[in-house]
Formats: sequence, C-alpha cells, structure tokens
Amino acid sequence: MFEQLGLIGCGLMGGSFALALKKAGLVKRVVGYSKSPSTTDRARQLGVIDVEAPSALLAAAGADIVLLAVPVAATQDTLKAIKHLVTPQMLVMDVGSTKTDVVHAARQALRDRVGSFVPAHPVTGREVSGVEYADADLYQGRQVILTPTERTLSAQLQKAESVWTALGCRVQSMSPESHDTAFAAISHLPHMLAFAMMNGITAQAEGETFLSVAGPGFRDFTRIAAGDAKMWRDILLANRDELLAQSAHFRQALTDFEQAVQQGDGQAIENLITLASETRAHWRMGAQRTHKAVS
Amino acid sequence: MFEQLGLIGCGLMGGSFALALKKAGLVKRVVGYSKSPSTTDRARQLGVIDVEAPSALLAAAGADIVLLAVPVAATQDTLKAIKHLVTPQMLVMDVGSTKTDVVHAARQALRDRVGSFVPAHPVTGREVSGVEYADADLYQGRQVILTPTERTLSAQLQKAESVWTALGCRVQSMSPESHDTAFAAISHLPHMLAFAMMNGITAQAEGETFLSVAGPGFRDFTRIAAGDAKMWRDILLANRDELLAQSAHFRQALTDFEQAVQQGDGQAIENLITLASETRAHWRMGAQRTHKAVS
Repeated sequence: MFEQLGLIGCGLMGGSFALALKKAGLVKRVVGYSKSPSTTDRARQLGVIDVEAPSALLAAAGADIVLLAVPVAATQDTLKAIKHLVTPQMLVMDVGSTKTDVVHAARQALRDRVGSFVPAHPVTGREVSGVEYADADLYQGRQVILTPTERTLSAQLQKAESVWTALGCRVQSMSPESHDTAFAAISHLPHMLAFAMMNGITAQAEGETFLSVAGPGFRDFTRIAAGDAKMWRDILLANRDELLAQSAHFRQALTDFEQAVQQGDGQAIENLITLASETRAHWRMGAQRTHKAVS
Repeated sequence: MFEQLGLIGCGLMGGSFALALKKAGLVKRVVGYSKSPSTTDRARQLGVIDVEAPSALLAAAGADIVLLAVPVAATQDTLKAIKHLVTPQMLVMDVGSTKTDVVHAARQALRDRVGSFVPAHPVTGREVSGVEYADADLYQGRQVILTPTERTLSAQLQKAESVWTALGCRVQSMSPESHDTAFAAISHLPHMLAFAMMNGITAQAEGETFLSVAGPGFRDFTRIAAGDAKMWRDILLANRDELLAQSAHFRQALTDFEQAVQQGDGQAIENLITLASETRAHWRMGAQRTHKAVS
C-alpha cells in the first residue's frame, strides 16, 4: 500500500495507472502533473488525480511511488526535474515502449539515485490518447516487461513486481537491449508496416475506392496504423537500429513470397503460408513459448 | 423465396449461407454436396443442409438457387459439372475472393448459359474453416461485391441483390478487374505482408522469445496470418499481377519510412505517420467514402 502516487503525465497510460491503483486499493492519494494545465485540470475533474501539482517536482514531493507517463523523449528532462527528491525508499517507474534509451536517460539524469528507478513497459495501449480514455482495467491481464540494470535496488524491483502483479499483470524481466530487439520485431516493425501500407494505398488515385470495399481483415490489420504520430515518431527513432534490422528480415521474407508468386510456384507459396499460419495459430498472447504451446 | 438451394461446398462460407437463408425464411430446402462425403454428412447432421447429394450435378438438380462455395481454382470444373442443369430461371452464384479468374472460368464452363451466373464476393471470413464453424450471422452487416458481366441477365442480378440484402448485406457492383485491383490492395497484399512478417520473425533464432512478449497490437495485425494455406495460395496465384503491383506500391512506401528513420528525420517520420494515421482514423468499414466521412 502506498501513501501517495506522484503521477507525471496524466494521459491514457498515466491516468489508467492512477485509476487502477485506486481501484486495487493500493494508494491513498494521487498528485498529478501534466505539461498542459488543462490536462491536469481535466484529470482532477475526472477523479483520476486528487491534487493538481504545478510542476513535475511538486508532483513527486512526498510521494512514495512516482510514475512517469510522458513521451519517451521527455524522460531525461523529467527525471532531472525530480532528481533532488528521489530517495532510496521511493519507487520510480516509467511506461515507455523503448528501454535502452530510457535506461540511458535515467543514468544521465539520476546518477547515484538511479537505483530507485525501475524501467517498465506495460504491453498495452489504445489508438486513442488523452485522460478522457483513462481506464482502470487497461493493464488487467497484460504483460509488463521490467528492464532493471545492475544498479537497480532489489527492494524497488520487488515493489515494482508486486504493484504490477496486483494490477493483474504478468511480470517478466529482461535486459533493455533484449527488450528493444524483441519489440522492434513484434511491435515497432508491425506499426511501420501498417503505416506504410496505408500510405501505399493513399498514394494511388483509386485509393479511396480501394478503402471503400475493405473488410474486417483490413480493419484488424491496420488498427495499429491509427496510432499517435508524435509518440510513434519517437519510438521509431529511439529504436532505429533494431527497427531497420527487423525491417531487413521482413523484406527478405517478403521477397520469398514475391518470387514464389512471380514464378507461379504454388507449392512454394503454400509452404510459406503454412509456416506463417501454423506459427500464428499456435501463438497465444502472454504464453511463454509459442510453438506447440496449445494443441 | 426460393424452393431449393443447391449448395456445392458445405464449408464455412457455404454452410453459413445455407443457415442464413434458412434463418431469413428464404428457402424451403437445402440440398448439399461436398467433395468429402464426411463433410456432406456432417453438414446434414448439423442441420446446415437437409439432403445430401452424391455429386455437384445432383445438388443443382431441382434447385432455383445454386451457391458454389468451393476453392476458386475449382470453379470451372464445378460449373462444367452442373452446366446441363443451368436454366435462365436459376440463380447461380459463387463466393470467391478473386473475380477476373472466376468470370473467365464461368464463361468457359457455362458458355451460352453464363447469363444465370452472378459472380459474388461477400467480404467476410474467419481464420477457421469447416462446416462446424458455419454461422447464420457470418454475412450480417458485411459488404457483398457483385461483378456482373455484359451477359449477366438483369433478372438474375436483381435476384442476387435481393438475396444478399435480405441477409443484411450492403451490395455493390463493380467490374471483375476493378474488384481484383481493389482487393489486391486491401486484402491480398495485407495477407501476404502478415504471412511474411510472421516468417521474418521465425527465421530468427530468438523468434520464439520475441513472440512471447507480443501484445494486442501484434495479435490484431497478424490475425489474418492464420488463414488457410491452400485457400490463400490460390488467391495469391489467381490475382498475381495485381498483387505484385500493389506490393511494389507498398515497398515504395516502406522505403520512404526506412529512409526517414535511417536519416533520423523526425519531421519526415511524423508526416508519414500522420498521413497513415489520419486516413485510418477516418476510415469506416463499409462507408462509401473514407476521407472526412466521419468528423
């Protein structure tokens, strides 16, 4: 049980965390700050936070748990702003989708106080943003990846695991580098592909006609293409090298398909689809192993 | 109201059509045939068909409406098998995902009786197949594209429109060629991309680890990658030229992203994402126009 959550960034992710902590009875008071005063105000009106703070520093003041839910690119400045109030007893976490850059930013900003910081990535989100969409159940049943470093205090790591578990999450730890490689493959690349496919269509004169007949397969495939432009710009940039490496793997797999189609090689096409289809059919969200995990 | 549906192919699509017609009170009797006798038998046990026919010809005998729900590649042989029973009063339709090849097959197989054939593509489907999954509501609320030719009898075209409308579908007509171009863009290409992305991941030694942390975005993006290998092999082959043309458009759009990421050009990335994101956010399934259709 925490006395006070200092919430820095009262958007969808931050607001949902505050509501989830409250719903689970894990916090007595939430003090919130957002860069835009109208967002902070709205968060209070909606009951997402109890008290408005005029700065990140004052949101952290007196808190025993601090959550940064700001754009990844703002992590370093935000941590710098609260550094003087970070204590070894305080648990500080983020919710960013990339972790190597966040860990680097935390080291730079917090220096000898970096042990209180537990980098966290809850694997969830929605194609809408803003505190209006904050949802106490956003994290329920999701995975949370923690990427502690050698300086992370084990007491803070344990606290972090307990909090997310109490919110109904499955918690897993990995290195920041492994995290970024994996998410380049299963999140950042799919987003870039979905964005590119939309643009490939709209670049054609008949694009609108094409879109008018699209059905449920297209709807699901492109859902992630509606993501927030600034947020995804930052993620694609932050994980640039891994993303480009994954894109190269994808291009090779696409070339295999194109060649088989070009050559009219039905058996090769069927083999390629079977490989993809069986992997996908056996995959279960959150299952530890994917192959043959489910009969 | 029809007296008798001759159902050739008692799988997911065909079985669902039979159940939907029955539910809407539009047919008195369903006579069904599938290549595999056990499927036909199962369809009768499940109440999807009333009478088992030992051949496609006998399924069509006495029918005033015939639905072909067979793999697209089997269209010509199937139509040839029933040709002698096709009358100008009979409505014959298919449910294939490609239409230029189906129209060609119908011309070849039916010759002077091709006027009774209305090529149809209900834009729906599931990642499972088989009569066990037949669902009276599979077509409810979906679009159906009809691709009549200059020889299609207008009485049959009207009947086809009425039937699908009565099943809760929105009916639209276009040429077989326009259909195939559009579906290469919004269905066949996305499937190929989803297949390729799965294979790009499994080609890597850490592929299973990557998949173990994938979340809801990945789940939706790759749902269509679980499609049936033989069915999609046939579709990709049947619409080969249009598919490869669309893949080239996509590759160009992907290159735009990769270059912006490579160069670390945040503004260019943001612009590209904004274009994709706004198009997708305004798109509504089944809406006639996509841009600014919804405020």
